[in-house]
Amino acid sequence: MPARKLDGVATAAAIRAELVPKVEAFTARAGRPPSLHILLVGDDPGSQVYVRNKERAGREAGLDVVIHRLPASAAAGEVMSEVRALNEDDGCDGILVQSPLPHTLGKKVEQLVFDLISPAKDVDCFHPENVGRLAQGRAILGPCTPSGVIELLVREQIQTVGKLAVVLGRSEIVGKPMALLLLQRDATVTICHSKTKDLAATAKEADILVAAIGRPGFVTPEFVKPGAVVIDVGINPLPDRDQVVGLFGEASPRVAAFDAKKPVITGDVHPAVAEIAGALTPVPGGVGPLTIAMLLKNTLTAAETRRG
Amino acid sequence: MPARKLDGVATAAAIRAELVPKVEAFTARAGRPPSLHILLVGDDPGSQVYVRNKERAGREAGLDVVIHRLPASAAAGEVMSEVRALNEDDGCDGILVQSPLPHTLGKKVEQLVFDLISPAKDVDCFHPENVGRLAQGRAILGPCTPSGVIELLVREQIQTVGKLAVVLGRSEIVGKPMALLLLQRDATVTICHSKTKDLAATAKEADILVAAIGRPGFVTPEFVKPGAVVIDVGINPLPDRDQVVGLFGEASPRVAAFDAKKPVITGDVHPAVAEIAGALTPVPGGVGPLTIAMLLKNTLTAAETRRG
Repeated sequence: MPARKLDGVATAAAIRAELVPKVEAFTARAGRPPSLHILLVGDDPGSQVYVRNKERAGREAGLDVVIHRLPASAAAGEVMSEVRALNEDDGCDGILVQSPLPHTLGKKVEQLVFDLISPAKDVDCFHPENVGRLAQGRAILGPCTPSGVIELLVREQIQTVGKLAVVLGRSEIVGKPMALLLLQRDATVTICHSKTKDLAATAKEADILVAAIGRPGFVTPEFVKPGAVVIDVGINPLPDRDQVVGLFGEASPRVAAFDAKKPVITGDVHPAVAEIAGALTPVPGGVGPLTIAMLLKNTLTAAETRRG
Repeated sequence: MPARKLDGVATAAAIRAELVPKVEAFTARAGRPPSLHILLVGDDPGSQVYVRNKERAGREAGLDVVIHRLPASAAAGEVMSEVRALNEDDGCDGILVQSPLPHTLGKKVEQLVFDLISPAKDVDCFHPENVGRLAQGRAILGPCTPSGVIELLVREQIQTVGKLAVVLGRSEIVGKPMALLLLQRDATVTICHSKTKDLAATAKEADILVAAIGRPGFVTPEFVKPGAVVIDVGINPLPDRDQVVGLFGEASPRVAAFDAKKPVITGDVHPAVAEIAGALTPVPGGVGPLTIAMLLKNTLTAAETRRG
């Protein structure tokens, strides 16, 4: 009995459809649409794709999306000046600096840039003030991926109260805020990571298992209690044909896609988990589309909150 | 074989002794000692005691401690004006608003007042920006009680890496920040609360069990794995003689103390746990003194950080 598929594409479409009349109402009141400003530094191909997807989705929802491009050679000061200008621009509601910044700038600059974004416009929820409000259960702008997972659970009527939720991964962007949001929804929450002993046994206790570790197919059936809800946050490109065959089998359309030189991505959850989980998000088509939908929702919220 | 006693009094004394030369060095450099300003609104007897203890400990460590008193009838605006004045006072390094504010002001005002304290002077670590920095593993000022527990674990050479830590309680002041700090020290962390199913069984898996629920003697031996480290954050006054007898037995000096009309407090951990835990913090004399020591440490850190 294969797992129920938790359809992120459909849920994201529903969220976006609900935004449209709210965006229209804001636009009518404010005389302009809510605006999302994306700062893209350099020419990383992955970032180009992500920014294009955000831009398209934003425009479809009726937002004004403005892309600001800086060359890979931009100095830290230029990036920070751009952010300061957006902070001060009253017509800008949401600011997103596409991560990662070019490696030449260094990890420290990325933190400085994120910290510089006005909390009121911080649609990624990276600023410590927004992270703190989240921890305190009073977020105005929430982190896009974990908030998207919560939306999915709610709309799929998956109970969290008193359930054991196990989060694999403790990143700032997914693992930690995911744990805090599940806690807020009255789950008992365990956070696991690379130092956890016997990860599989701990994961196997979960009623709700969230995998956010970035390792393709790492979560095998031995990690999963029969009937558990499994949320796969991983988005892992597979560069190696053997990996694709190993995970999906020689007959899989993904192998054909790989051979046709199409990009093949997979989550952190092994395909065999579909045979024992009660419900499962696919990759692609699970959490990914929800992340973008929540970014749009945050942009509207930022616009409404700034207008008071 | 009774549990090793984790002596919070001795550890707090060691932390405070280490502060003295640092406070002297700051005073010599700055031409004045680090200063802690405590705002006490109303005449709650418990708050009076807490403030007196903080004042005495601060002065012993060489800090300048200034108590600002407002009557219980003070309006929200007066409390907020006082905080604003302290924010702007360059001679003030740390601000502590003693909680709870009078009930007449309402819970919402307390939140507004805490949010108003400059993050740089927020020695209680209540401001969302400081909570966020804590969640991101880059706190400058940390929450006093959980930071004190970590100091105790480190100084008692209790390993956290790869251990299962279970935190009972999800308060903003103890439970959540405690979980985040244990996670930062590479423990696998489970957060339990009132909605957790089978609390005892979950707690019993813990290598390190932190009880922060505010229920006297709630954590009985069935919650504790033999040999586990048990940290008791509870500070519960016992108003009822039967409770004292029930927990400690008729022959206990605590019953005599109760009969002599002395206040009797106990933790969240039942006395019988001492027979099976590997190590245990007593109440009193465990986590309580550490909280004050960390407040003094935060005041010095705030003073040093503000001076750059």
